[in-house]
Amino acid sequence: MAKHLARMAHLTYFNGRGRGEIIRMMLSAAKIPFTETFLTERKPFEKLIEDGVLPFKQVPLLRIDDMELVQTGAIVRYVAKKGGMYGADDKESALIDMYYEGSRDFYFHFLTVIFMKTEEQVIKDARTAADDKYFPALEKRLKETGTGYLVGSSLTMADVGFLEVLLLCVEYGGDDFLDGHPEVKQYYQRLVALPYIAEFLKGPLRKRKNDEQYVTEVKRVLNRQ
Amino acid sequence: MAKHLARMAHLTYFNGRGRGEIIRMMLSAAKIPFTETFLTERKPFEKLIEDGVLPFKQVPLLRIDDMELVQTGAIVRYVAKKGGMYGADDKESALIDMYYEGSRDFYFHFLTVIFMKTEEQVIKDARTAADDKYFPALEKRLKETGTGYLVGSSLTMADVGFLEVLLLCVEYGGDDFLDGHPEVKQYYQRLVALPYIAEFLKGPLRKRKNDEQYVTEVKRVLNRQ
Repeated sequence: MAKHLARMAHLTYFNGRGRGEIIRMMLSAAKIPFTETFLTERKPFEKLIEDGVLPFKQVPLLRIDDMELVQTGAIVRYVAKKGGMYGADDKESALIDMYYEGSRDFYFHFLTVIFMKTEEQVIKDARTAADDKYFPALEKRLKETGTGYLVGSSLTMADVGFLEVLLLCVEYGGDDFLDGHPEVKQYYQRLVALPYIAEFLKGPLRKRKNDEQYVTEVKRVLNRQ
Repeated sequence: MAKHLARMAHLTYFNGRGRGEIIRMMLSAAKIPFTETFLTERKPFEKLIEDGVLPFKQVPLLRIDDMELVQTGAIVRYVAKKGGMYGADDKESALIDMYYEGSRDFYFHFLTVIFMKTEEQVIKDARTAADDKYFPALEKRLKETGTGYLVGSSLTMADVGFLEVLLLCVEYGGDDFLDGHPEVKQYYQRLVALPYIAEFLKGPLRKRKNDEQYVTEVKRVLNRQ
């Protein structure tokens, strides 16, 4: 039992989505069980810095395989490798990185919701980016592979990256956000129906939409007004 | 000859550093010969988009091993693998990703020089970030490895990532920018003295500091005022 627990991954982040949500999604898709610590006060965060486990004074932090990993991009890639979601060779990995990084640029439109822009402005900007860049890119690529996935014939980090943003598009922009792009909609519907993804989305690991309480907690931990 | 040329990497970007410089540095460190196309007008950029090689309508673009790779993070990782600069196993790669991503956050302070903030403000912000986060992180890590490199005992993507920023620190902040941090200064001095790095820095591949001409060209290509 102790050995099993020691092997379990453990995520330290705020009690909300932010940069932690893609890690939760990836761990779920990779079928790696994990527990969580939520930072809601300043002191435990300072303790982590004092302990020297946050080299850049930032979370998320994932403890996994006797490592203390920070930086979302590093964590997601390690989990992807463990879960067989990083391609079969260097060329596939490069394509996965390429689409994953594209999904991060797209995601950036939503990252600051509540913190900076109004929800209306966020939806408008995301709509423009989706129509101009990201949906055409997805349509072209899905047509090229013909497998229903962006690279290869199974779920990779690239798909999970875009899934995170498509969920936000629908949540903020409404069910009809994807209506003008049937291939993207079909892709989205297939991904959310995958058993381990569906389970994650309806379970306790999935965090609620950012709200005022989340903003208050994050600011308290980071000592910002 | 034709075969040799076909194998050569080819970088398409603006005629300046921007997001292209880390790719040039990595290709040089990996000893992969490459040629360049500089985008200085709108038309050739539009042609690339029409040809479907820029899925996110962005450069840099690296043609390598019959692939057309976009997204800096994807390109750098592929080059790192080809050059043996991505660690010996998944755990080392995770640490390399972690420090590389940290270097990107640090680099971000310089990315917008000339475009957004005054040079004075950039130096001030970089100084604060360096003292608060990045130099202590480098000092701690270099002490841990004791090899003079951030991960393992040879140059990796993580070192090149930080080298790019340290060069900017010295270029913008002056030779004494690193004076309060002797371990960081020593690390920097050793990296710039590595033969293939030294050769790159004094050669034609290294681009000049961002200037007005560069800003004008980038805006012309991207159709921005």
